[in-house]
Amino acid sequence: MRSLITGGAGFIGSHVARHCLAMGHEVVVLDDLSGGFRDQVTDGALFAEGSITDDALVERLFAEHRFDYVYHIAAYAAEGLSHFIRRFNYSNNIIGSATLINAAVRHDVKCFVFTSSIATYGAAQVPMREDMTPHPEDPYGIAKYAVELDLDAAHRQFGLNFVIFRPHNVYGEHQNIGDRYRNVIGIFLAQMLRGEPLAIFGDGEQQRAFSHIDDVAPHIARSVDVPAARGQAINIGADEPCSIIRLVELVGREFGITPKVTHLPPRNEVVHAWSDHDRARRLLGVQPLVGLEDGLHQMAEWARRVGVRSSPGAPPIEVDKGVPWTAGG
Amino acid sequence: MRSLITGGAGFIGSHVARHCLAMGHEVVVLDDLSGGFRDQVTDGALFAEGSITDDALVERLFAEHRFDYVYHIAAYAAEGLSHFIRRFNYSNNIIGSATLINAAVRHDVKCFVFTSSIATYGAAQVPMREDMTPHPEDPYGIAKYAVELDLDAAHRQFGLNFVIFRPHNVYGEHQNIGDRYRNVIGIFLAQMLRGEPLAIFGDGEQQRAFSHIDDVAPHIARSVDVPAARGQAINIGADEPCSIIRLVELVGREFGITPKVTHLPPRNEVVHAWSDHDRARRLLGVQPLVGLEDGLHQMAEWARRVGVRSSPGAPPIEVDKGVPWTAGG
Repeated sequence: MRSLITGGAGFIGSHVARHCLAMGHEVVVLDDLSGGFRDQVTDGALFAEGSITDDALVERLFAEHRFDYVYHIAAYAAEGLSHFIRRFNYSNNIIGSATLINAAVRHDVKCFVFTSSIATYGAAQVPMREDMTPHPEDPYGIAKYAVELDLDAAHRQFGLNFVIFRPHNVYGEHQNIGDRYRNVIGIFLAQMLRGEPLAIFGDGEQQRAFSHIDDVAPHIARSVDVPAARGQAINIGADEPCSIIRLVELVGREFGITPKVTHLPPRNEVVHAWSDHDRARRLLGVQPLVGLEDGLHQMAEWARRVGVRSSPGAPPIEVDKGVPWTAGG
Repeated sequence: MRSLITGGAGFIGSHVARHCLAMGHEVVVLDDLSGGFRDQVTDGALFAEGSITDDALVERLFAEHRFDYVYHIAAYAAEGLSHFIRRFNYSNNIIGSATLINAAVRHDVKCFVFTSSIATYGAAQVPMREDMTPHPEDPYGIAKYAVELDLDAAHRQFGLNFVIFRPHNVYGEHQNIGDRYRNVIGIFLAQMLRGEPLAIFGDGEQQRAFSHIDDVAPHIARSVDVPAARGQAINIGADEPCSIIRLVELVGREFGITPKVTHLPPRNEVVHAWSDHDRARRLLGVQPLVGLEDGLHQMAEWARRVGVRSSPGAPPIEVDKGVPWTAGG
């Protein structure tokens, strides 16, 4: 089986690529290295550097490798920033996805796996369930939901098979902790390693369920072999919510200190976001295995080893009215 | 008041521009002439030729003219074709819209009026009502719905005021009847003028409510002056559904003949689509005035006068699997 992994030099993608190789797939990674790193491309995969929005490149890869499966994981996943970079967000997350869906239809891909997001739900009741009607509230979530609907349309029009995952707050090795706009655990680790105070938006009582990559990536990889998963949107990740305040405590414990914190003004975000995983359990037998303290420890060990690396990362701000990040770092 | 009308050389946009001028607005028309015509730009409006996706041009226009209102009407509105041109569709309809929304936020536009579509509803129960949750089924409807959600996000984040219209099957003078991919009335008139048979997809029992431009454009133009319309999505158009078969009859009557028809295979489309207009009546006092026979007569007179003009029109097909238009025309 031949698989394309977009974003395969990035966080979730590099892990999915590794699992696909272990499953015996031939793997091609497509990544523009805007947020990923060349050395994170798993050994044994072919690497193509370039953008998912590059129609000619995408067509060439599909024609050459005749992929059975596409795992479309590339995204600029900075939800909170997306209000301020809507144009970039939609280009990256919708045009890029449409380019891949076109190619998947033209080349009769057997299954298209897409990592959407819990952001599709918007400010829904928690725990969020897949049978709730999505109502995303920021451009990032809107882009993800539009692609979900687009896959559904491509299935009805062309018979394209797909599986959608809605992960949430995934953390672990290979996360881009040098990008100050995304992923609170990565940001906290970077702040700890730099000796900076941990920056909290608002009172820190927001709750998220932090999900270790090992409880997410393997299930994404093997979903193509699960017929019942086809055509479904599936929440995936940890069950237990945890407040940002509590996360500060756990990070401090990992580093053996009581962290300094700064409180920034609250930003426009969903206060509580975690989800129900009945469907993942039922269809994929998912059972989260990595507790937050263990997972944090593993990730911190890795972060101490590789340090805080930066990548070209964040795009230019398009609208600078009230961007909630004023401090550097 | 200064207003920008995107798509103002096209069908709905040229009429809205005329009404805005009549309301005393200074009007700038932005149109790339892909589907519109220079001579349809209403006298008294300034004309800028270019694309809504051209960020630098858009920023320059906003900086120079300091618009109070934006009427964003430009779109490649070929719903049925959108499956086969998803990349073009999303670039035109989402990236273009995001470019304008960014500029509207940066320049403190007072109200952003957006023409969405009945396509946002998908295959919902008829009549479609604004309190139904949209579930668009084709890339065109998905793009329109994504922009609706994006406006809502821009309102919550930045306070941008907006009004959304969901027109359906609008017809009348200035419609691009040379584009074989869009608007059944325009296509039928072009086929009559060329002496071709009228092409019907499937059995022709599909129902639509055909809405004359004079029952749509004036209400769009003056919506900026109706505070209660802000933040709302509003269906607009005719109340009476009419089957395609019946439309063939009416078109024949207008030309004094019994038209020849060809039946093409049914395409993947919503069978019945019309909508409820309580909200438009309540908020805007809308009362449709132009009956279908009168409206058809006016439009046919105009079409006989100007002929079937073509424009650069339709973009290249991206996926040619089962495009439902095989004949030329």
